[in-house]
Amino acid sequence: MKTAQIAGLLGARLEGDADREIVGGAALGAADETHLAFFDGRGEPTTALASKAGCLLLPPDIPAPDGAAVIRVTKPRHAFARALRALHPPEPGPPGVHPSATVAATARLGAGVSIGPQCVIEDDVAIGAGTTLVAGVWVGRGARIGEACKLFHGVSLYPGVRIGDRAIVHAGARLGSDGFGFVFENGRHEKFPQIGGLRIGDDAEIGANATVDRGALGDTVIGNGVKLDNLVHVGHNCRLGDHVVIAAQTGFSGGVVVEDYVVMGGQVGVGEGARIGKAAQVGGQAGPLPNHTLEGGKAYWGTPARPYREHMKKLALVERLPKLAAEVEKMRARLKELEDK
Amino acid sequence: MKTAQIAGLLGARLEGDADREIVGGAALGAADETHLAFFDGRGEPTTALASKAGCLLLPPDIPAPDGAAVIRVTKPRHAFARALRALHPPEPGPPGVHPSATVAATARLGAGVSIGPQCVIEDDVAIGAGTTLVAGVWVGRGARIGEACKLFHGVSLYPGVRIGDRAIVHAGARLGSDGFGFVFENGRHEKFPQIGGLRIGDDAEIGANATVDRGALGDTVIGNGVKLDNLVHVGHNCRLGDHVVIAAQTGFSGGVVVEDYVVMGGQVGVGEGARIGKAAQVGGQAGPLPNHTLEGGKAYWGTPARPYREHMKKLALVERLPKLAAEVEKMRARLKELEDK
Amino acid sequence: MKTAQIAGLLGARLEGDADREIVGGAALGAADETHLAFFDGRGEPTTALASKAGCLLLPPDIPAPDGAAVIRVTKPRHAFARALRALHPPEPGPPGVHPSATVAATARLGAGVSIGPQCVIEDDVAIGAGTTLVAGVWVGRGARIGEACKLFHGVSLYPGVRIGDRAIVHAGARLGSDGFGFVFENGRHEKFPQIGGLRIGDDAEIGANATVDRGALGDTVIGNGVKLDNLVHVGHNCRLGDHVVIAAQTGFSGGVVVEDYVVMGGQVGVGEGARIGKAAQVGGQAGPLPNHTLEGGKAYWGTPARPYREHMKKLALVERLPKLAAEVEKMRARLKELEDK
Repeated sequence: MKTAQIAGLLGARLEGDADREIVGGAALGAADETHLAFFDGRGEPTTALASKAGCLLLPPDIPAPDGAAVIRVTKPRHAFARALRALHPPEPGPPGVHPSATVAATARLGAGVSIGPQCVIEDDVAIGAGTTLVAGVWVGRGARIGEACKLFHGVSLYPGVRIGDRAIVHAGARLGSDGFGFVFENGRHEKFPQIGGLRIGDDAEIGANATVDRGALGDTVIGNGVKLDNLVHVGHNCRLGDHVVIAAQTGFSGGVVVEDYVVMGGQVGVGEGARIGKAAQVGGQAGPLPNHTLEGGKAYWGTPARPYREHMKKLALVERLPKLAAEVEKMRARLKELEDK
Repeated sequence: MKTAQIAGLLGARLEGDADREIVGGAALGAADETHLAFFDGRGEPTTALASKAGCLLLPPDIPAPDGAAVIRVTKPRHAFARALRALHPPEPGPPGVHPSATVAATARLGAGVSIGPQCVIEDDVAIGAGTTLVAGVWVGRGARIGEACKLFHGVSLYPGVRIGDRAIVHAGARLGSDGFGFVFENGRHEKFPQIGGLRIGDDAEIGANATVDRGALGDTVIGNGVKLDNLVHVGHNCRLGDHVVIAAQTGFSGGVVVEDYVVMGGQVGVGEGARIGKAAQVGGQAGPLPNHTLEGGKAYWGTPARPYREHMKKLALVERLPKLAAEVEKMRARLKELEDK
Repeated sequence: MKTAQIAGLLGARLEGDADREIVGGAALGAADETHLAFFDGRGEPTTALASKAGCLLLPPDIPAPDGAAVIRVTKPRHAFARALRALHPPEPGPPGVHPSATVAATARLGAGVSIGPQCVIEDDVAIGAGTTLVAGVWVGRGARIGEACKLFHGVSLYPGVRIGDRAIVHAGARLGSDGFGFVFENGRHEKFPQIGGLRIGDDAEIGANATVDRGALGDTVIGNGVKLDNLVHVGHNCRLGDHVVIAAQTGFSGGVVVEDYVVMGGQVGVGEGARIGKAAQVGGQAGPLPNHTLEGGKAYWGTPARPYREHMKKLALVERLPKLAAEVEKMRARLKELEDK
């Protein structure tokens, strides 16, 4: 892609060589003349000056190295991401069904669908145009996958699971496994049937080895634009809104509601039936309690999860406990002295 | 299944149409005339009255909607689970070996065993009658699986692992991987051989992407009726008793003993060699310390894990720390004043 | 292996029968005459005296049972591990490519490489001599695996991942999946391209269902001799030094630096950009904060992670909070009394 094309794509002003061929992106220090790189104001501006990148994305006020093609943008990181998505478009696999795959006769595959080696597609599955199953993917009976999706190696879709368009599902993710529900009877835990479904919206990205359970009764629902990191667990009948972002190893018990634009750190554990309000932010390892609501628009941390500032204040006081204890000790002595008088 | 048959199965009294055909279960609000539904006293009784379900499971004192067939039971949730297990019996796969599977000549398969596509069965494996391997399951040399089990896509059984009857193993579970043991020698961590086994009892359910390690020396043992949720980790040489229930993402270090009927929340981390007493309950994200014992029959929470009430009291006092600190500050001033007099 | 051979291997003195045939190792109480066992001073020395093991590894001062062959060593546990590695050498699979595997014509396989059933090897992959892929392993385009490695069932190597020699990768590990990076634009999280690589050194052991992401720009790097337990997550652009040991379910956000010889417990959550100094030890469930450094050579615990002793002291003070609160209450009353006078 020529530097001029990249500038055009970003709707931004180009300084310098418009004709240079750029083949990929790199970090400032690692880039060579074939690379696009960016400086977003973090770190020393001299790193930008020293870069050997063929094309640089810079804010208006940052000086450019001699000879570099420069594209002036207000948000270099965003512009870089956009340019790189164009430079490295998602690569669909070779169209057609690999001879080692097992595809039911009743499965419907859209135009250009790529079914890689060792995949297993059961009866009544529908897969939208341009979708790629890399290898070893299992799609259970009646499942539906939208268009332009990419499912990596070893992904499992249990029967009836539905995924929208442009989803990326990383290796080993398990979608639609049974929820964890039992009734205790005669000294044994008997299975509470898990007969609901799982619906995932458009533009989802599901991390490697993540697990999302189907509903017990009714569906588990994941909205549009939701991003789940590796090893995230979503229990039965959770409802995640649109554009929710969840970092690695966070887990949701059953029936949790997560409203739009919530962002969570890693290893958060959310109790059964909790509700996380719109655009709330929850810090790593926090533990929102079962059946509690965290109000939207605020930051939370700790177990039990509390408003961030409140939790920080508490942490600070705990830090000061040795001092406080010493203080009390001293006061006791002084009190004794007064009493003795 | 007719309404009368369901009532018979539950040994309960039927009111209304005995002949209605019920094909499945649903939540009260979603059910139609072909569905069984239940109301267990949580929420408003009017939801039961408004239900369109063809057959309702209700406690004796709850009024029924006109025209519904009603089965009177004391524990509607339990009855519903039992009825649904009859309405949706586990579906074994088609008997026989899929042509794409790889099955060693020395493997012994019981009557009606279903080996799905892309499965790999190594030498000297034995699989009991009626067991289904859905797809892409690997069963290592000498492993044994009981009768009427269901192993979902991509499950791994390392060599020699033994599983009892009626187990359900969800997609991507890894059973019998090496334990995590090393000796430090000449500046390197050298592998401590992991040559023990893994035995799992009857009626186990193992969640998606869970991992259970084999023993280093001697076996890792999982009792009967144990339920492990998704992404649970069980280290080498742990011994879990019967009817233990462990929620998602909880992990056990090596050599932990968990007695019968223990119930644990999610993301609990149990230290090496700890012992969790019979029927103890451990709250989410708790951290029982290495080599400590939690007495049976009690509830625990926190890291280090403490009796639940004690931990709650401590949490409450930490919540009150700002007040306590202010109090001390005030007293100091008053003390100063007294001293100055 | 004869007892004399084992003693020779360990460079240690043998007492008793030099000619006894030993076929494996076992725990003291479970061993029979064909087994090697060890007593390392933990527990009662009488357990050593009562052992039926054919050959015992004992410290110099521990009495031996009559008739046992005894090898005198200062570190019996280490010696046992070394002997067992010789008694149970890693078993490479049958050389060659299983007919059910899919191997690209451009893949280069070293001498004695074993490609098991259902494996998928893409273009331009190189696999070193003596390496075994057990079954269902996916090796993406251009990936490189060293010599004498063993990759278990269902492992995924994304394109371009590089692994050194003698690695053991357990079932379901995902190496080189996309990092978790997005830019927020027009109300949506857009993917920040993940175009870096993943390099893993020699002698690594990666646990079952662990996930290690590729770099966003530049590589994620795992050093030599690193041991990651099951379900560990390593985010994009982390750099783990040599001989690092990480217990199960621990997670690293993006860009974390872990220096050589660090040891971490399970369920630790390390914030973005943190640095863990050489040979630091981090206790289970701890939470080193983003962009903070933990100095090398020390032990840490808690969230936020603090020096171990400091954290323990704080825990002790929190335990004493009820007492402290009662104390303050009492002093307030005494103060009131004094003031009233």
